[in-house]
Amino acid sequence: MLTLQRSFALLPLTLALGFTSISGHTENTPLTAQASDPQVMGWMQGFPPPKDKLISQPESDFFSFPKLRWTVCHIRELMPTSEVSRGIGAPSTLNYALDKNIDAITFTPTGSTQKMTWRQSLDANYTDGIMVMHHGKVVYERQNGCLNELGNHAAMSMTKSLTGLLAETLVIEGKLNDKALVGTIIPELKNSGFGDATVRQVMDMTTALDYSENYADPNADIWQYSAAASPLPKAKDYTGPNGYFEYLQTVKKKGTHGAEFNYRTINSDALGWIISRTTGKAVDDLLSERIWQKIGAEQSAYMTVDAKGTPFAGGGVSAGLHDMARIGSLMLNKGEINGHRLFPAAVVDSIEAGGDKKVFAKSGYDQLKNGSYKSMWWLFNNPTPIYAARGVHGQTVYVDPAADMVIVRFASYPEASNGKIDPTSLPAYSALANYLIKK
Amino acid sequence: MLTLQRSFALLPLTLALGFTSISGHTENTPLTAQASDPQVMGWMQGFPPPKDKLISQPESDFFSFPKLRWTVCHIRELMPTSEVSRGIGAPSTLNYALDKNIDAITFTPTGSTQKMTWRQSLDANYTDGIMVMHHGKVVYERQNGCLNELGNHAAMSMTKSLTGLLAETLVIEGKLNDKALVGTIIPELKNSGFGDATVRQVMDMTTALDYSENYADPNADIWQYSAAASPLPKAKDYTGPNGYFEYLQTVKKKGTHGAEFNYRTINSDALGWIISRTTGKAVDDLLSERIWQKIGAEQSAYMTVDAKGTPFAGGGVSAGLHDMARIGSLMLNKGEINGHRLFPAAVVDSIEAGGDKKVFAKSGYDQLKNGSYKSMWWLFNNPTPIYAARGVHGQTVYVDPAADMVIVRFASYPEASNGKIDPTSLPAYSALANYLIKK
Repeated sequence: MLTLQRSFALLPLTLALGFTSISGHTENTPLTAQASDPQVMGWMQGFPPPKDKLISQPESDFFSFPKLRWTVCHIRELMPTSEVSRGIGAPSTLNYALDKNIDAITFTPTGSTQKMTWRQSLDANYTDGIMVMHHGKVVYERQNGCLNELGNHAAMSMTKSLTGLLAETLVIEGKLNDKALVGTIIPELKNSGFGDATVRQVMDMTTALDYSENYADPNADIWQYSAAASPLPKAKDYTGPNGYFEYLQTVKKKGTHGAEFNYRTINSDALGWIISRTTGKAVDDLLSERIWQKIGAEQSAYMTVDAKGTPFAGGGVSAGLHDMARIGSLMLNKGEINGHRLFPAAVVDSIEAGGDKKVFAKSGYDQLKNGSYKSMWWLFNNPTPIYAARGVHGQTVYVDPAADMVIVRFASYPEASNGKIDPTSLPAYSALANYLIKK
Repeated sequence: MLTLQRSFALLPLTLALGFTSISGHTENTPLTAQASDPQVMGWMQGFPPPKDKLISQPESDFFSFPKLRWTVCHIRELMPTSEVSRGIGAPSTLNYALDKNIDAITFTPTGSTQKMTWRQSLDANYTDGIMVMHHGKVVYERQNGCLNELGNHAAMSMTKSLTGLLAETLVIEGKLNDKALVGTIIPELKNSGFGDATVRQVMDMTTALDYSENYADPNADIWQYSAAASPLPKAKDYTGPNGYFEYLQTVKKKGTHGAEFNYRTINSDALGWIISRTTGKAVDDLLSERIWQKIGAEQSAYMTVDAKGTPFAGGGVSAGLHDMARIGSLMLNKGEINGHRLFPAAVVDSIEAGGDKKVFAKSGYDQLKNGSYKSMWWLFNNPTPIYAARGVHGQTVYVDPAADMVIVRFASYPEASNGKIDPTSLPAYSALANYLIKK
């Protein structure tokens, strides 16, 4: 269970889903991708939907499997959100060169002896949408489950990578000093655990904080974070912090900053605060200005917000699959897209260079051997250098520069554990890269 | 206070704003448009916003003046909403032929002896955005307050007119029989006050229902409607209906259907239900399919939803100013836009023909003499036939076929009473029409 408790990005949105029930589902063998398809399940169909087909608050209901297979495309219908505007211009054209042979590509899942096809892996991973770009063209695309080309899907902790991208851009532009102590930028955090951490340590999640994400413990800090972050009105007897920024001030230090990688969503929200204090703009607005309005996006994205309107920089983004592919292309092409440069190539160079492998190795992500975490992007060798945005339940933007390939995937895997999804994903991505390189 | 209690479209969203406090503000002379500008007020600025600049739940706070001047552009940040997708194509081009002389056009407000200029009328009405189209070109545009071209604004009860337009289209297409009794289409409403009303009576709001919108009465039905409609989780001791559809079933009959026009939002939500049962589609989805994806919209619109995901057909739409202008053009051109026909001209002909003036006259809308209400559009002569979508706090899509003119306005007037806004609006629109006709 190490992987689940340390999983990438169990964001507050998902907190109330209940570790136990998820685990229970798995032990009882969850419904297959086909059987749990939201259309097949009949969620939210009818006027009104019958009681047993209704998905609504609270989170413990709407984010439990199999309901989450509907919910990941409908976050905004369940809670307040803020638009990440695409602007009002025409979207850019995606060029297609679909390759029908990809479905039949085979690979051996990690820890298995039995081969699997690319097509089979999609259902094994409860994929809702996947798109592969190679040499700048779409060679593979599939949208199903709750997703279609007019829909948005929860990006989960891929949000962190967008936040990290904004921060890295500000660093390279000289607007944010990554050696500065957080307390000098956010005075409110001076006496918190973040106070004497550097911006870089926050960006790379090597802060040493007294913060538990043990979902089995009802007193774990993550639950208080979740309560603080909820956009719903607080109960009358609630006396805790209200919103991301108030919560972050309560976090204490534990250990030595920079010594160990520890994946904690609160770093991303602290980084969001640093970005906003530095630029005078909320993360959603900056993301719109810097990225979404510049990539030729087809759809506006959106972010969940707390009760004070603060966007959830650690996990709140929902976006369209095509637009996430544009983000992947932007990264692969080091800041250029549609003939425009959005940020210096040095931004991507810094991310690609990766973080400290030694501090990462201490964290126990066994399937990401020789990996690291830099500016909220995951780095791993597979076998060549690759970096990725990743979110629970199977979200990824996977950038393989050597193969000139980007894979973007939205999914709704029953468990919030990439450790269970990687075995049928990472080898599949490798096999696809090998196929495309030789093509 | 008659006009306020009978005002157009005090939608549940706004219910908790508190009739008294609004009234109080007015008696103490509310802040001017300039002084209450959200930027000037500093609402929601800073990270986090200081406590006295924060706008959040509950509604009694966020929808009180002057906060509402910010809120009308940020509904989605305060509650769950559903997208009305524009699709993913390029938006259509709006042609501009701006006329700088319009600002200086003068008119005499109703009940006044002192002339006012067009420009002055905008501030008098707390206008957030206004656009005038004449002979198919934009001759005037202004966006300010909380609004800009990337923003959306609450359309309030203009939503009803969009719902009515969908229903009228289904009637003309022969898919919905407006002579059918509601109970035959929605069996759940058979024993309610709606049961033996015709679809047409619902569309034209001549149903006879035991339903009070007296905001001064804490036991008025409108409060129970508001509680049922809230998308927030219900209190544990709440035993009332959950959602629009459950509430509608509790409404009893009082009087004779067809005898009198009575402006009640519940008719629009009943019509939304009729539309959904007829088409198998939710109103937000149908609005996207039939209208938003077809008008070359620049932005997706959105609708507030109840706790079951039902869109608020009586008042939930937020949209961009340019897109509302496209709706106005679509109506003026009787269903054609950008060279495409979206619905038969007979749909607009039916709306333009108006409703029963005698039953309308009984309702006491003194400023809309010789007026009527048809398919959720307001008809009045000013002096030639004109029809309009209208929403509280100053929203309008005003279609003047004789002048080949459309005026679209978003506003955030301190009071939810068009009776106070019309005196400086309707004569201004007339003066502008006269100017454009003679030009």
